[in-house]
Amino acid sequence: MKLLEDRIRRDGRILPGDVIKVDSFLNHLIDVELVSACADEWYNIYKDMGVTKILTIEASGIALASITATKFSVPVLFAKKTRSSNLSQRVLSTKVVSYTHGQSYDVIVSRDYIKKEDKILIIDDFLANGSALRALVTLAEKAGATVLGIGIAVEKVYQGGGEDIRRRGYRIDSLAKIKSVDVESGIEFYE
Amino acid sequence: MKLLEDRIRRDGRILPGDVIKVDSFLNHLIDVELVSACADEWYNIYKDMGVTKILTIEASGIALASITATKFSVPVLFAKKTRSSNLSQRVLSTKVVSYTHGQSYDVIVSRDYIKKEDKILIIDDFLANGSALRALVTLAEKAGATVLGIGIAVEKVYQGGGEDIRRRGYRIDSLAKIKSVDVESGIEFYE
Repeated sequence: MKLLEDRIRRDGRILPGDVIKVDSFLNHLIDVELVSACADEWYNIYKDMGVTKILTIEASGIALASITATKFSVPVLFAKKTRSSNLSQRVLSTKVVSYTHGQSYDVIVSRDYIKKEDKILIIDDFLANGSALRALVTLAEKAGATVLGIGIAVEKVYQGGGEDIRRRGYRIDSLAKIKSVDVESGIEFYE
Repeated sequence: MKLLEDRIRRDGRILPGDVIKVDSFLNHLIDVELVSACADEWYNIYKDMGVTKILTIEASGIALASITATKFSVPVLFAKKTRSSNLSQRVLSTKVVSYTHGQSYDVIVSRDYIKKEDKILIIDDFLANGSALRALVTLAEKAGATVLGIGIAVEKVYQGGGEDIRRRGYRIDSLAKIKSVDVESGIEFYE
């Protein structure tokens, strides 16, 4: 999606350690018109597939997922991160080890809010090693729901998370697929 | 706002200890059409006041704030909660003591994303004792920005947070103002 790639080129900041900061328009300060254009792309792909629910994970996925949900006129459910070991019977949970922060946490959703009849579109802002996304897929699987597909704004393809999840049979529609990042030469995208 | 009050009466769950759960439509599973109707109310109030930015706090405020931002065609900024004591020079921060969880945490936003020229509409889902909201007001004040007003979905009036913030001169537009909650007799709203 050219609009998003151009914005990443213009306003993304490349930091040492393979970090791309998009927090001026995507995940801290959020340009909702850009997000709405992203949501239109996912809507065009999935509009005839019977999506019943949008699933995301707190916090930065919520803006994209909520605006996407308005296009489909379906509810959005956001999974919560918790370090509490006291999980109630009323939640579905899965454990995530964060490579970024070196900590593990549980990702939970209420059992009441994903049903096996649900046809889910997962939405998130970023896909790198895929740990958060695998957790969302696992929660949907535990509920017996169908994951129709996954909409991602920015995928760092070379970190392998997307490849792993596609290999498991899931469809991922990433709007900007990053091939390489370099402080000197900038960001290269896949076509 | 009758639509929201009716929904709280129908789907809100009253738990012992003065707890009202609205997580089936407002802050876990989110009915984005209801949220969009809330956003329209705030838009009608603030549309001629020159709002430049919507400010909220993670996580459950983000859906309301993002959809509200689409009405105004302005960006949304969400403040982050962190327990890290290593705050960079690049952030504005304020400390919050959570009565619910008995812990303290810092609420931060990047200095780059609130300017003194900003005219801010703060949006959040819930107002009870007001600790999170006071933090947002404080961050806007630290940036020298103008807070035009505060849009809240559900205010538990008797917990006093709203009164305290109004006394400081801020305008709050709550769409459902709860007068009392009782497991037996249900929820009573102010007109």
